[in-house]
Amino acid sequence: MHKFKEEDYTWEGVTKLVYKEDGSPFKDVTRQVLFDGAFDLPVQFRYFEVGEGGYSTLEHHEHTHMVMIFRGSGQALLGERVQDVKCGDVLVIPSYTMHQFRANNGEKLGFLCLVNQERDKVKLPTEEELNNMNKIEEVKLFLKSR
Amino acid sequence: MHKFKEEDYTWEGVTKLVYKEDGSPFKDVTRQVLFDGAFDLPVQFRYFEVGEGGYSTLEHHEHTHMVMIFRGSGQALLGERVQDVKCGDVLVIPSYTMHQFRANNGEKLGFLCLVNQERDKVKLPTEEELNNMNKIEEVKLFLKSR
Repeated sequence: MHKFKEEDYTWEGVTKLVYKEDGSPFKDVTRQVLFDGAFDLPVQFRYFEVGEGGYSTLEHHEHTHMVMIFRGSGQALLGERVQDVKCGDVLVIPSYTMHQFRANNGEKLGFLCLVNQERDKVKLPTEEELNNMNKIEEVKLFLKSR
Repeated sequence: MHKFKEEDYTWEGVTKLVYKEDGSPFKDVTRQVLFDGAFDLPVQFRYFEVGEGGYSTLEHHEHTHMVMIFRGSGQALLGERVQDVKCGDVLVIPSYTMHQFRANNGEKLGFLCLVNQERDKVKLPTEEELNNMNKIEEVKLFLKSR
């Protein structure tokens, strides 16, 4: 069993890792792998924590995410939609939906994320895609929020 | 998105169901299916809540469970071992390990449980297995705890 330590949102026997090591842009995010699959559950269940004012990578890809917020609050971008999220909320990020999580509500934002162990590489938005996103006022505000 | 309602641990758009309908013994347990799979995630992610003094079915089976406690505290039996569990703890129940959750700590016990969408049927303990379990003092105390 991985005992949870609520003082710092870590788990016994689980290492706190750098969020990503592929050079993609993000700010102040850690990663803990809570479950790394079994013969009949070829999935990973991770806990990501975004420090106040931080953000995950703005990305899309073929694979699906199931996400449950586990700490604090903030906002999530899904496609062209910005949503307020707080502890307990469950969301699914479908294939090729651009997404990002931001701890832009004055506190940390921690979330659990379920993925297949085998998944395609993350794609960053092109300059054109970014330009189009910034044409949507709500998305533009989100993308520069802290 | 399924917004979480912390007043009663329900989620918008998710139905609160009876725990089981196969006639197996349990006491005061509800079930909510938070995620029912995607093309690359053939799994179910459920929230079970055990009322104070209640318990899940004592069972084993081939399929694996990944469990994260999400509310309150209690105890879990895994094989011949009784463990105190509380919000945030993560545990894996391997194949054919007898298990049960009990809200025996004066409060509700809620837990998230990940399983494959396709899984074998639950097996209840035989009388002989129950007798053997009751020979272990710690397990015996657990099995009658409320």
